[in-house]
Amino acid sequence: MAVLTSQARALLESDALAHLVTLNRDGSPQVSCVWVGLDGDDIVTGHQQRRLKVRNIERDPRVVLSIEASTLNDRGLREYLVVHGRARVEEGGARALLQDLARVYLGPDAVFPPPQFQAPGFITRITPEKLGGVGPWTHPDA
Amino acid sequence: MAVLTSQARALLESDALAHLVTLNRDGSPQVSCVWVGLDGDDIVTGHQQRRLKVRNIERDPRVVLSIEASTLNDRGLREYLVVHGRARVEEGGARALLQDLARVYLGPDAVFPPPQFQAPGFITRITPEKLGGVGPWTHPDA
Repeated sequence: MAVLTSQARALLESDALAHLVTLNRDGSPQVSCVWVGLDGDDIVTGHQQRRLKVRNIERDPRVVLSIEASTLNDRGLREYLVVHGRARVEEGGARALLQDLARVYLGPDAVFPPPQFQAPGFITRITPEKLGGVGPWTHPDA
Repeated sequence: MAVLTSQARALLESDALAHLVTLNRDGSPQVSCVWVGLDGDDIVTGHQQRRLKVRNIERDPRVVLSIEASTLNDRGLREYLVVHGRARVEEGGARALLQDLARVYLGPDAVFPPPQFQAPGFITRITPEKLGGVGPWTHPDA
């Protein structure tokens, strides 16, 4: 059974930033905000360079994403989605993915990365294993 | 020298939610969105119950907070603050702290926690050690 419910998918396909948590070599947490999209049942994000979060995932695939929603729950608290998953890094493909995500996050006419960036970059592919947070994410779809 | 610059302090005192990362017993990351405020140079957050994040901090004090700003940088990307720090849990005090934070996060007339919640709860106090993210946070104050 797919872990992502339709409401979780909608938030992951929106322009809400994802706070991506990876684990450093010493076990301490590392956080970056990233653009995310969906590719089937996986969550994907693109990287222009092989920075810390990419190296972290190559060493330890355990990641968590958290994303704020624009909705409030019945106690008036802001809803947010937490996704626990396993990530893997693929070489190449970042230019096209980042351009697709830029249309969602920056606007339909956005050009990103800038043309002078020609490196193939990296894609992180996250297989969701468990959902949490505050909101309707874990309810079975009707 | 205090780690928090004036611009970081302003964001930490705003109504922006903090994504608080703690470490589970098996070393995997845990994330909850929390209300935060400042007490001197420490970041404080309140908990009604001794849930997973409180127990995690009691075992491993390494935490990270990330907070989205409402501002964009000169490349058009949303700014966000990351705070790496050491946390400790204090018993009691959560009712008054949560009521203070509710005025910031919910509105000046908010009553929170609800009156039937009488437990003293817990406060987490985070001493910032390093700032990161995207934005002016790490610039020395003028």
